[in-house]
Amino acid sequence: MAKDSQFVSQIADIESDFPQWYSDVVLKTGLVDYGPVKGTMVIRPYGYAIWENIQKELDRRFKETGHENAYFPLLIPMSFMTKESEHVEGFAPEVAVVTHAGGEKLAEPLCIRPTSETIIGTMYAKWIQSYRDLPVLMNQWANVMRWEKTTRPFLRTSEFLWQEGHTVHATEEEAMEETMKMLGVYEEFARTCLAMPVLTGRKTEKEKFAGAVATYGMEAMMHDGKSLQAGTSHYLGQNFSKAFDIKFLDKDGVQKYAYTTSWGVSTRLIGAIIMTHGDQRGLVLPPVVAPVQAVIVPIAVKKPGVAEACAELKTRLEQAGVRVVLDDSDNSPGWKFNEWEMKGVPVRIELGPRDLEAGKMLCARRDNHEKTEIALAQAEEGVKQLLADIQKNMYERAKERMDTRIIQAGTLDELLAGVNGGNFVRAGWCGCRECEDKVKEFAQATARVYAKEQTAEKCAVCGKPAAHTVIFARAY
Amino acid sequence: MAKDSQFVSQIADIESDFPQWYSDVVLKTGLVDYGPVKGTMVIRPYGYAIWENIQKELDRRFKETGHENAYFPLLIPMSFMTKESEHVEGFAPEVAVVTHAGGEKLAEPLCIRPTSETIIGTMYAKWIQSYRDLPVLMNQWANVMRWEKTTRPFLRTSEFLWQEGHTVHATEEEAMEETMKMLGVYEEFARTCLAMPVLTGRKTEKEKFAGAVATYGMEAMMHDGKSLQAGTSHYLGQNFSKAFDIKFLDKDGVQKYAYTTSWGVSTRLIGAIIMTHGDQRGLVLPPVVAPVQAVIVPIAVKKPGVAEACAELKTRLEQAGVRVVLDDSDNSPGWKFNEWEMKGVPVRIELGPRDLEAGKMLCARRDNHEKTEIALAQAEEGVKQLLADIQKNMYERAKERMDTRIIQAGTLDELLAGVNGGNFVRAGWCGCRECEDKVKEFAQATARVYAKEQTAEKCAVCGKPAAHTVIFARAY
Repeated sequence: MAKDSQFVSQIADIESDFPQWYSDVVLKTGLVDYGPVKGTMVIRPYGYAIWENIQKELDRRFKETGHENAYFPLLIPMSFMTKESEHVEGFAPEVAVVTHAGGEKLAEPLCIRPTSETIIGTMYAKWIQSYRDLPVLMNQWANVMRWEKTTRPFLRTSEFLWQEGHTVHATEEEAMEETMKMLGVYEEFARTCLAMPVLTGRKTEKEKFAGAVATYGMEAMMHDGKSLQAGTSHYLGQNFSKAFDIKFLDKDGVQKYAYTTSWGVSTRLIGAIIMTHGDQRGLVLPPVVAPVQAVIVPIAVKKPGVAEACAELKTRLEQAGVRVVLDDSDNSPGWKFNEWEMKGVPVRIELGPRDLEAGKMLCARRDNHEKTEIALAQAEEGVKQLLADIQKNMYERAKERMDTRIIQAGTLDELLAGVNGGNFVRAGWCGCRECEDKVKEFAQATARVYAKEQTAEKCAVCGKPAAHTVIFARAY
Repeated sequence: MAKDSQFVSQIADIESDFPQWYSDVVLKTGLVDYGPVKGTMVIRPYGYAIWENIQKELDRRFKETGHENAYFPLLIPMSFMTKESEHVEGFAPEVAVVTHAGGEKLAEPLCIRPTSETIIGTMYAKWIQSYRDLPVLMNQWANVMRWEKTTRPFLRTSEFLWQEGHTVHATEEEAMEETMKMLGVYEEFARTCLAMPVLTGRKTEKEKFAGAVATYGMEAMMHDGKSLQAGTSHYLGQNFSKAFDIKFLDKDGVQKYAYTTSWGVSTRLIGAIIMTHGDQRGLVLPPVVAPVQAVIVPIAVKKPGVAEACAELKTRLEQAGVRVVLDDSDNSPGWKFNEWEMKGVPVRIELGPRDLEAGKMLCARRDNHEKTEIALAQAEEGVKQLLADIQKNMYERAKERMDTRIIQAGTLDELLAGVNGGNFVRAGWCGCRECEDKVKEFAQATARVYAKEQTAEKCAVCGKPAAHTVIFARAY
């Protein structure tokens, strides 16, 4: 790639122009590029490697909780979409439609899946006959398409990659348990792998998934104080089983409609990582999902022994399971420092003649810019410990930041001031759609989730008794 | 799932009705189901798990040979397809076309990728400027769509899953080296992971990829003697770099068109495994990619200690890295034997009171039905050794079978008799299209690959001097 020593100065200011900072960072670090069709993205190797690490971590968790992967077709007959009335209302305006194939006009137009409840429901109806066939616990990794007017790489693109879990249960209790279990899996994954604290909770009717009985979401606070919906888990009740005829003969000999769930996270998570941890110098990647965990930068590489020591160190770290790169390009150390900082690599290792003499290496942390000396003899354990410390520190820092920026509001004016200040705002809500719409209109904020604790007594909008305490925020 | 003890008898006879045997096996073992849209398939968990194992093995090999994964958009502007004239001619008749999206008619119709040379080429042209940017070695795992008239699960479906590698090089030599290297990776993978011997070699002009300078394929012999193209590696020369303007400034200061390659294998490989190794009782899966490598069937499970011993054995084998299932369902051992045989599980372990007393377990091999006793104390090593033996035996058996069924033909009549007998036929070919077409017309056989050794002197069709020795066969 064309080299450019002015990278850092080319990133817009993170505080005064966060949207531009985001575009600069995702493009200049080689995470992504714009695709030729409006609204599409190309996920470049550095970005895709993050996705692969996310997939690996999540896939293991899905399998440990008893789920199996499968693959369902991309194209869904338009007639399937209309079987669940709320569902079609929510998704029809966004679908891409195939009308011709194999040189002929199709008898029925097909839509590219925006989500797969309808086609998976159709198959489940065929496969499930008896209570013995339940539960069905499946997941698929796939591309989906939602035609959006305003797009931004990772955050909102017409095509994106995701996983969608779809499960079927004999009882409401079991289905609800599954819904909450997977929400918990997402929360634990975000916390331990992405170093990303999230608020979890139920969504309002307005914000729920089209066709769900209840949607539970996890919301993360971005650098600018806006919220990003990072994952959702839906309790679908019998809505889809009735629309698609997913019935089973229960133990008592009675035919019953099953209860279903669905849950998903997407490449959006990459955007969430960037906007949770990034700083003025660029990306700051959590070690667990960073494509490169450590970069070795040789100092005075032509001095005897330096190149060899760097190569040997690389091999040792690799064998210890560290994802490591040795930057032996012709660029200056200073240039390399900038580049790898911008790329968010958690640990930079500097190794030169003096370090070699002293039997040490200098490690610079990306998260807090602290420098530590580690004995070369303890390189493996030292770097691994450092990566663990960084992961922990990144979470704690983000958690503290979020916690201090969840504030209380008793009136619409306070709510507006709160979100203007880049906060999540906890406020009472009477439960009516009019008040929810007013918050949107007046403060450009939406109800993200119901708070776990009911602390508000009055609706911040109308002053009537609060049915819920809600976390309001501006959102991506 | 509804249980049925008549599974085995429901499989059609493998010798007299191989196509029906195939359909029966893929459906009844739960590998796949038909999707609602004609020509589509649903890959069920048992089938998808094979694909996951294939992906894992191949992905490691791609990375070891320096390739990185990326993801390019599903939708390609129709105008891209027409930039390479051979390419559009080959693929246009098969594409599915999106004409409407987001509730509006699109200004330009978009096609769902049948393969991604055109969209990836467009991005490469943007990214590549200098010889320093080369080589570019990328791969993507994706779904593609080719609208086919006649379809069969795994073998030919309108949508399928695959990987497509796309590389760019400064010189013809390097690009050719890459083309052959990846063909070699496929061959080694097929041999060691799928226990599948293949013939590799160059394809004729008629059979090559639309837009390639040269296509190299690997062909595997199925149970009925027909050939299945199991993977291809294309040397694209400068055809796509000229059509998409992939240029670079070379060391000598001259702007040059780059040389590109592409290579792919797909879920078709699952069909290849089934038809290479399957027998009258159903699937026979190679241990390396089998979702379940060993099944434990308890005998007289209510006798003291049996259930506990089976559970303990399962845990031990799992910890040793064996993919193992304990079938503790209510079905009879005989029923279980049938079911797991049909599912092709490599090793069945029977464990009952007498075995426990003797400190042994009985292991039945799926490949040759031999039974071995293994000491319970050596369960881990014993089962792993057995799996390795099965893998090796399956390859050798298939190799011997293929070797004895490659025969020589000097005339078109001999060629016809050869393919009628379920053989691959080695024959001379003058090199002209008319003779190639005559083989197709007369014997319903096609040129699969050029043979490694030039043994024929005359064209089997016209009798003129042979330019090539070709392997002809009927093909899937």
